[in-house]
Amino acid sequence: MSSPEIDALTQALSRLPGLGPRSARRAVLHLLKRRETALEPLRAALDAVDARMSTCSTCGNVDTNNPCHICTDPRRDDTLLAVVEDVADLWAMDRARLFSGRYHVLGGRLSALEGVGPEDLSVEQLLVRARDERVTEVVLAMNATMEGQTTLYYIAERLESMNVNVTTLAHGVPVGGELDYLDEGTIAQALRARQPLSR
Amino acid sequence: MSSPEIDALTQALSRLPGLGPRSARRAVLHLLKRRETALEPLRAALDAVDARMSTCSTCGNVDTNNPCHICTDPRRDDTLLAVVEDVADLWAMDRARLFSGRYHVLGGRLSALEGVGPEDLSVEQLLVRARDERVTEVVLAMNATMEGQTTLYYIAERLESMNVNVTTLAHGVPVGGELDYLDEGTIAQALRARQPLSR
Repeated sequence: MSSPEIDALTQALSRLPGLGPRSARRAVLHLLKRRETALEPLRAALDAVDARMSTCSTCGNVDTNNPCHICTDPRRDDTLLAVVEDVADLWAMDRARLFSGRYHVLGGRLSALEGVGPEDLSVEQLLVRARDERVTEVVLAMNATMEGQTTLYYIAERLESMNVNVTTLAHGVPVGGELDYLDEGTIAQALRARQPLSR
Repeated sequence: MSSPEIDALTQALSRLPGLGPRSARRAVLHLLKRRETALEPLRAALDAVDARMSTCSTCGNVDTNNPCHICTDPRRDDTLLAVVEDVADLWAMDRARLFSGRYHVLGGRLSALEGVGPEDLSVEQLLVRARDERVTEVVLAMNATMEGQTTLYYIAERLESMNVNVTTLAHGVPVGGELDYLDEGTIAQALRARQPLSR
């Protein structure tokens, strides 16, 4: 039997997404074996995040500044607004380094199963931004899941009366994707949206 | 792009066994969304472990006391010593609540591939214990892997000149195991070690 200290750390780690009780236990042992190189850096990193990170009250991003560095960056195109489900999606899009506009984080997706309704997401703030800011195009960048798409159509409807163009991400074969491993829906979408070969 | 604070925490988490970069990122967001219920408990647990846990200089267990609570428990049978590869294995055996003796943690397994030799494990300490303590039986409880078994035979050989009985864990069908999913080696071992049915 291990000690209460170990149990508490195992439990705290096992609540992280992707870590079950067994891998949490292995992680604890890993940390114990490597105090200087693993435990201390993790502790310092948690401290820094807790002390310095806050949620941007404009877009919902997590950043050291509020408003965040994206919302305050003058080089960003303020006529273009991408709506994403979560901060992770914002980071993923920003890693692609193609999108030059700003973001709006909904904070989740509509889900009857999990009891998430429009009032649980930052939909009203989005409508205010679409109305008051200089936005001309809203890119709905929800995940290509059932719930993501339900959310997408709901937001699209709410934006209908606004004076903005509403667009969505293209569906198709992911880069590096093999047809054999793709579902029929994706292949059908990719076929429908096929483009002339550019040489 | 996320901030250096987020990157540092993501990196610290992604070094844990079982967490890749992607799940580490998800874990960071999970912690950020739940500061009071996830981030603070994890921080407190890390602090407590770092402040209070040490390695038992007798057996290699990790505990709040040194020697650990197992080595100092007078109800434990001090003629019985189980040798395990890692602290995780000690905990696993102790969770079974059947073994009443004490433990010796080797700190790994012999591995030509990873360059782990006998001098990297606490083999000499084990021999000293087998000689100086009141041990009459050493249970070699290494993992049933190639490297675990190599280590087992090496330790068994080193213990040969000692005045102790050397035993190993039984092989067989794991409880809840389905034959269809077991390798032939396990099935063969289970057949060879078959026992009369007790009613």
